Amino acid sequence: MSKSLDKEVELFSSSIAEDSQLYLYDLWGSAAHSRMLEKIGLLTSHEGYSLRQGLRAIKQEIEEGRIAFSGFEDIHSLIEARLRELQGEVGEKLHTARSRNDQIVLDEKLFLREEIINIVERIHNLQKALLAKAQENLTLVMPGFTHLQPAQPVLFAHHLLAYFSMTKRDVARLMDNLERVNTLPLGAGALAGTSIPIDRFYVAKLLAFPSVQDNSMDVVSDRDFILEFLGNVALLFIHLSRMGEEIVLWSSPAFHFIEIDDSFTTGSSIMPQKKNPDVAELIRGKTGEVISSWISLATTLKGLPLTYNRDLQQDKPPLFRSIKEVKASLRIAARLIENIRPIKEEMEKALRDGFLTATDFCEYLVTKGVPFRKAHQMVGELVKQLASRGASFRELTPSDLSPFSDFLDQDFIPYLEEKTSVERKASFGSSSPWEIERQLREATQWIAEQEEAINSLRKEWHESFERVLMRESAE
Amino acid sequence: MSKSLDKEVELFSSSIAEDSQLYLYDLWGSAAHSRMLEKIGLLTSHEGYSLRQGLRAIKQEIEEGRIAFSGFEDIHSLIEARLRELQGEVGEKLHTARSRNDQIVLDEKLFLREEIINIVERIHNLQKALLAKAQENLTLVMPGFTHLQPAQPVLFAHHLLAYFSMTKRDVARLMDNLERVNTLPLGAGALAGTSIPIDRFYVAKLLAFPSVQDNSMDVVSDRDFILEFLGNVALLFIHLSRMGEEIVLWSSPAFHFIEIDDSFTTGSSIMPQKKNPDVAELIRGKTGEVISSWISLATTLKGLPLTYNRDLQQDKPPLFRSIKEVKASLRIAARLIENIRPIKEEMEKALRDGFLTATDFCEYLVTKGVPFRKAHQMVGELVKQLASRGASFRELTPSDLSPFSDFLDQDFIPYLEEKTSVERKASFGSSSPWEIERQLREATQWIAEQEEAINSLRKEWHESFERVLMRESAE
Amino acid sequence: MSKSLDKEVELFSSSIAEDSQLYLYDLWGSAAHSRMLEKIGLLTSHEGYSLRQGLRAIKQEIEEGRIAFSGFEDIHSLIEARLRELQGEVGEKLHTARSRNDQIVLDEKLFLREEIINIVERIHNLQKALLAKAQENLTLVMPGFTHLQPAQPVLFAHHLLAYFSMTKRDVARLMDNLERVNTLPLGAGALAGTSIPIDRFYVAKLLAFPSVQDNSMDVVSDRDFILEFLGNVALLFIHLSRMGEEIVLWSSPAFHFIEIDDSFTTGSSIMPQKKNPDVAELIRGKTGEVISSWISLATTLKGLPLTYNRDLQQDKPPLFRSIKEVKASLRIAARLIENIRPIKEEMEKALRDGFLTATDFCEYLVTKGVPFRKAHQMVGELVKQLASRGASFRELTPSDLSPFSDFLDQDFIPYLEEKTSVERKASFGSSSPWEIERQLREATQWIAEQEEAINSLRKEWHESFERVLMRESAE
Amino acid sequence: MSKSLDKEVELFSSSIAEDSQLYLYDLWGSAAHSRMLEKIGLLTSHEGYSLRQGLRAIKQEIEEGRIAFSGFEDIHSLIEARLRELQGEVGEKLHTARSRNDQIVLDEKLFLREEIINIVERIHNLQKALLAKAQENLTLVMPGFTHLQPAQPVLFAHHLLAYFSMTKRDVARLMDNLERVNTLPLGAGALAGTSIPIDRFYVAKLLAFPSVQDNSMDVVSDRDFILEFLGNVALLFIHLSRMGEEIVLWSSPAFHFIEIDDSFTTGSSIMPQKKNPDVAELIRGKTGEVISSWISLATTLKGLPLTYNRDLQQDKPPLFRSIKEVKASLRIAARLIENIRPIKEEMEKALRDGFLTATDFCEYLVTKGVPFRKAHQMVGELVKQLASRGASFRELTPSDLSPFSDFLDQDFIPYLEEKTSVERKASFGSSSPWEIERQLREATQWIAEQEEAINSLRKEWHESFERVLMRESAE
Repeated sequence: MSKSLDKEVELFSSSIAEDSQLYLYDLWGSAAHSRMLEKIGLLTSHEGYSLRQGLRAIKQEIEEGRIAFSGFEDIHSLIEARLRELQGEVGEKLHTARSRNDQIVLDEKLFLREEIINIVERIHNLQKALLAKAQENLTLVMPGFTHLQPAQPVLFAHHLLAYFSMTKRDVARLMDNLERVNTLPLGAGALAGTSIPIDRFYVAKLLAFPSVQDNSMDVVSDRDFILEFLGNVALLFIHLSRMGEEIVLWSSPAFHFIEIDDSFTTGSSIMPQKKNPDVAELIRGKTGEVISSWISLATTLKGLPLTYNRDLQQDKPPLFRSIKEVKASLRIAARLIENIRPIKEEMEKALRDGFLTATDFCEYLVTKGVPFRKAHQMVGELVKQLASRGASFRELTPSDLSPFSDFLDQDFIPYLEEKTSVERKASFGSSSPWEIERQLREATQWIAEQEEAINSLRKEWHESFERVLMRESAE
Repeated sequence: MSKSLDKEVELFSSSIAEDSQLYLYDLWGSAAHSRMLEKIGLLTSHEGYSLRQGLRAIKQEIEEGRIAFSGFEDIHSLIEARLRELQGEVGEKLHTARSRNDQIVLDEKLFLREEIINIVERIHNLQKALLAKAQENLTLVMPGFTHLQPAQPVLFAHHLLAYFSMTKRDVARLMDNLERVNTLPLGAGALAGTSIPIDRFYVAKLLAFPSVQDNSMDVVSDRDFILEFLGNVALLFIHLSRMGEEIVLWSSPAFHFIEIDDSFTTGSSIMPQKKNPDVAELIRGKTGEVISSWISLATTLKGLPLTYNRDLQQDKPPLFRSIKEVKASLRIAARLIENIRPIKEEMEKALRDGFLTATDFCEYLVTKGVPFRKAHQMVGELVKQLASRGASFRELTPSDLSPFSDFLDQDFIPYLEEKTSVERKASFGSSSPWEIERQLREATQWIAEQEEAINSLRKEWHESFERVLMRESAE
Repeated sequence: MSKSLDKEVELFSSSIAEDSQLYLYDLWGSAAHSRMLEKIGLLTSHEGYSLRQGLRAIKQEIEEGRIAFSGFEDIHSLIEARLRELQGEVGEKLHTARSRNDQIVLDEKLFLREEIINIVERIHNLQKALLAKAQENLTLVMPGFTHLQPAQPVLFAHHLLAYFSMTKRDVARLMDNLERVNTLPLGAGALAGTSIPIDRFYVAKLLAFPSVQDNSMDVVSDRDFILEFLGNVALLFIHLSRMGEEIVLWSSPAFHFIEIDDSFTTGSSIMPQKKNPDVAELIRGKTGEVISSWISLATTLKGLPLTYNRDLQQDKPPLFRSIKEVKASLRIAARLIENIRPIKEEMEKALRDGFLTATDFCEYLVTKGVPFRKAHQMVGELVKQLASRGASFRELTPSDLSPFSDFLDQDFIPYLEEKTSVERKASFGSSSPWEIERQLREATQWIAEQEEAINSLRKEWHESFERVLMRESAE
Repeated sequence: MSKSLDKEVELFSSSIAEDSQLYLYDLWGSAAHSRMLEKIGLLTSHEGYSLRQGLRAIKQEIEEGRIAFSGFEDIHSLIEARLRELQGEVGEKLHTARSRNDQIVLDEKLFLREEIINIVERIHNLQKALLAKAQENLTLVMPGFTHLQPAQPVLFAHHLLAYFSMTKRDVARLMDNLERVNTLPLGAGALAGTSIPIDRFYVAKLLAFPSVQDNSMDVVSDRDFILEFLGNVALLFIHLSRMGEEIVLWSSPAFHFIEIDDSFTTGSSIMPQKKNPDVAELIRGKTGEVISSWISLATTLKGLPLTYNRDLQQDKPPLFRSIKEVKASLRIAARLIENIRPIKEEMEKALRDGFLTATDFCEYLVTKGVPFRKAHQMVGELVKQLASRGASFRELTPSDLSPFSDFLDQDFIPYLEEKTSVERKASFGSSSPWEIERQLREATQWIAEQEEAINSLRKEWHESFERVLMRESAE
């Protein structure tokens, strides 16, 4: 270029405020690249050592805050420039057979695969809090709701475990996502590959990637793995928002199903009596930021021609923002669950209103041979009559029951009892105490297995990092 | 209820305009439910037969257009009501141990697992069109672009195969999604399970579900599988939008890289000379509808308390809309690819502008021992000089080359030749002809395997449908 | 074109399923165009009459269902083709100095300006329902909430009027929007204007457009007025969603602040006792569809080069969908408000819990010279002590009050009374009964003025329609 | 509260990282509040002076970096606490008759009304750059495009002015928005107003608000003005994205309609010949962030019950993000326009391909009495024949023209000349040079008027700030 870049343009187009977060991954990937160049004879082992020595020095400088980021276009340029300063001409050899176009994707994949694991770990922590709270309250019965109307008695533990089921799917989606993240992009060059006979499979092995991403034009255009991740995180956050909503509801005096510990509520600047469920509200409120992060990247990608376009730089703000929000919210959500206390008496009081065992009554009649729809209609009539005189199932009179006389045995009265309704549940996945115990057992087992898998991946990556970048005997 | 539903409310809250599309799945699931009720003794075999006879009759009535949908709240109510009319009191028994809350999820899962397969099949068709077009043009070289600026020579086939790689990931995501769709929800009841000892595993076997969904409160609240699907379809559509953009660009006289067959272009109402790439534009334009479908459901789900809320009815418009758009666009996209013809001369002309082999020159110098960054700088200088006098690599003079004299052999001239640049590419995934042939081979193989897997699923489901609903010897 | 359009392409690219809704506007605009062509001498008065006779005939044919839409690309082509059939060669003259590019924008603007008025009218109906319900319950006190925690006593009417204030802003935004819709696009041609000396100001006068849209390249690229509209409708729907949420909450037995009339609630297929607020849930749930309509068009428009691109055809699905949803929801929302009945006793019961007059107490102390923050702290302490022994302000003992002894007169006890708290409110916009009466009065006045403005516009447009298209003495 | 807030909760729920940006507005509003409390006798003039002295001191401390923000919940708490430290007990009086719920809305409105003006000013700067570039190139003709296919000759200035028209609408929308921002919220209290006889109209006058926002429950729940703003900014950014797309296209060698100055393009890390339009790409790419900011807040607001909920705190990240992005992009976009140079020869070359005057030919025939549709068909046939033999209008033979012999005079040949086509344009808003001159004149006039209006507002606000907070003679 005959002219140097305009200062404002430099500032406008710099991504270093964001991608400096990736420095560790850039150094790690660069070290692996240097080892491969050595293997294929483009660097001597002396040169390779010197480069990595420089990379290690830069790592230390960054971590000690001795490098000023501003003024650089991106983290890659910064590291390359500093390497040239520290190690001299050999620094000019590192960029051989590599472009920033494939390098940035490598950095993002190394970074994101770790963050996926970090998020999964925090999901596990939330799940453990849910399981522990369920375990503590194994026999506690509450009204289950549909349409925010009391519907049938359920176990409080059953309700908590619904969030286990949701987040278990979140983990499954993230682990599927991980497969598409965990594949080596480096070696795609700017877009067309390279005439230098690089060994991409060797780099993959060094960096613990199980596979090598194929078509180079696709590689440098591809941000699918990020959009998929943002979608997964948004769905996870939708689950958190539903939990947040319920905690707001339950802690409202209208319900009063739970107390939130004082250390987890805040007051009002004007109303001295207030005790607000701010944490639950904020979790619910942050959902917008995460849902919109998906839209941000989807909008950016839509209609872009191949291959790399500078628009792709805009993948970072939504990615980093979502990760930050989801990690913070998962952590505080787990602690919030620990800090709620169910109020048994209020739950029981709510059970008594609303004919919650009407379905049990119908199912009783079915066992006596009444077709379900007829039973439904008969019980509906009965409920209407009771309600019109302000009575509940507790106040049944013989005349109320006369239409049922053909079907009722002496044994039917307990069927109307709300607290024991769950004990009659007989189906897989239902609210019966035995089912809940099974669900708890299996959930605990599943978390243990998942944790093992995660730890094993983490160990593998840590070893790669050490082996590729950090550990090297002086020549 | 003491009063009947207001007429306007009935109309406002009815979902039958949409869920009538699910009638086949509602009948199929109902047949399976009846067989299970038979197995556990709540229906006699005579009753079961009678119910299924009614379901078959309703199927025929619907398919012959003899049933008026309007006036019903949803497809479930319609079928239950008609069953009662056709088969009498036994019709009142079918809803035993079942709620519309679990029934609708069953219908949606039966429906969606088939549509996923249908979409995957249409992706395969698009992929085959891409592979065929690549195969026909194996040696055709074009400029590869970054920032919409010519960057390096690539094979046209390489570019087409990038879309194969993208859509291959789409298939992987949809098949992962399928696992979470393909699990039985029925048996969750309204929210709490049931006191009737139903056999959910038997129903799963009948309906060819490999697993049974656990926690019943989660089951009736869960639309995750749809949101995940909408996200996957949106990403697939983003790929189509990028292809659409490129076809619009390439068919513009400014590029003129392709001709679209006249049967695939439209004219102008005022400008008689126009030949517009409307299909590509529409595919690109429809992306908004599909991206927004994800947002539609995400917004609906955000902050909903458990379990079923009527808001969930709004899962259907975005689901049905997305499926319709993506199926139509995939089909026409495959045919659009068949109907484009690359213009070799224009691609070659474009190759000659823009110093596309500058990177090749750098890589040549690297093999001669010049550090890459130095080579990059030297070639950059040369390009600047040539450009300033309007010359290309073809017009190099000895004095241009004098700075390189230490590094150049006689063999270097072919390195500047654009058409042969791809032949020098040596890396896995690159634009070299041998790599493209490998990619084509593997792609063909992969499609064949996938098709087999899909056909096997489809066969299994078809057999379930026949066995459960259609095939029954009269008593 | 040497080949005719592929059948599938024809189907894929046709917009007639949607734009046939615009037929009336297309006929109206065409009639105005013909009158202008007459004025500038490009049509004889005989030709003009003949064309409009044809347009009137087509109107009748469409309204009597005698025209098959399918097979046409769009409504413009259909009308032009039919005109040729009915009136012969003169039909070929109508498209003079007009392109579908400016014609479709005209149709959309004629359509949308009416729909804006229709929506504003339905907002007024909802507002009237709110005002009527407020008027009926002028003195009813309920807890006002922040964080879904009871905060201070407010008038039920005050709460309802908050929705009046929100929707009043919606009207203002829509009327601002209308100004940008209500400007004539016709005459932009395909993109560049025309060499035929058309009189755009005459057309504007005929069609009752107060102004003519300038730059022709902008005109045919512009869908801003639709995106603005979709944003306004989304915000309106967010208000409806908040109202929906509150009706769901209030009708839950946990609150039981209102009863919804039976004709506005639905039952359960399994639980005979249920009475669900489906209408409120559906209004809340439909918000996703409307919010996402904005995203749909925003995504479509993003990054489109000038001028017309076929992608713009995709403006119609989100536009028509939003209008349909918002009109239906406004209508049913107004009736829902009419069908709720506040439960005074439950509101009063809820008032008694939660120290709702703590702020009143603070404000009392302020008038006695205590700095607010100190008063806030003292009352906070008192509340904490009372709460710890399960007491309310009703059970204050002298020892509770001793820290306040310097500031309390005999008059302070009524300050703790919840039901009269609103009567002490003194600020503009507050919950005092006098303020509410003022708000009601002003609201009624404002609606009356707005209705007049709307009726006047509607009349003007109706007259243009009659004068331009319908009324014509035979030659 | 019996327990202090958990440390992690404190961190999670603090908004000070964002709302500290509002300190100036918080101080300004607090000063006005103190003056009103003085007026109604709740503060002595000594107390009022002392409070404002404290506020001024805090302003200085913040601006000199002497205040640590972290550890505070929000900017209001920080200022209140510091005021107490600096001025003693009087600091406890400032919060009288005020809640953070109305205070934060005040701060946001004071802030946003200024930022709207700032953005409008930057739009004017972009518009001036467009007008200047148009003025420099008044007679430059280029192909106008539809469907990215050359359609008709247009003036380059006409194309630039299309962006003036778009952004003029953006200004109109923002100024309409301003009306809804520029109304006083303070005095709503926590939600219900206050029993203290505050004078809200006096505060409005002090702070230069033309009106006072009514219903207090609405006031503290209302973030409509922010969502409206985000929608307006998103639409403005869509315009920028379209301009960015066009600059990317035009600077691609395929078009080569413009050169971007070297100081506004960047190179490649691997390809030494590259000159990339990064600024235009980044502007286009940033659209996702701004579109998604609207979605973020829309999702947050959807379904929230009245009145204040902590979710509302999440209005700040999308608001601040959008303002930052739009201000930076507007500034660089103006300079980008200054730094492009149209390439006359390339535009002329492109004019010659593609029968761009076919419409002119049709319009000529119309003036000779041929019905437009017939002319369209005849010219279409001619174009097809010419194209099939690779000829243009320049190579017309007498036999080509024979079908037209009845209609052609000697004067018709210039009608096919592309460069003069614009001179024949006769309609308002068209591409004729006289029209462009008119558009330029009116645009310049409009900007001047707008600037005056803006400056007057800015002056008024500045004076309020000085009068209310800064200027005070010591007692």
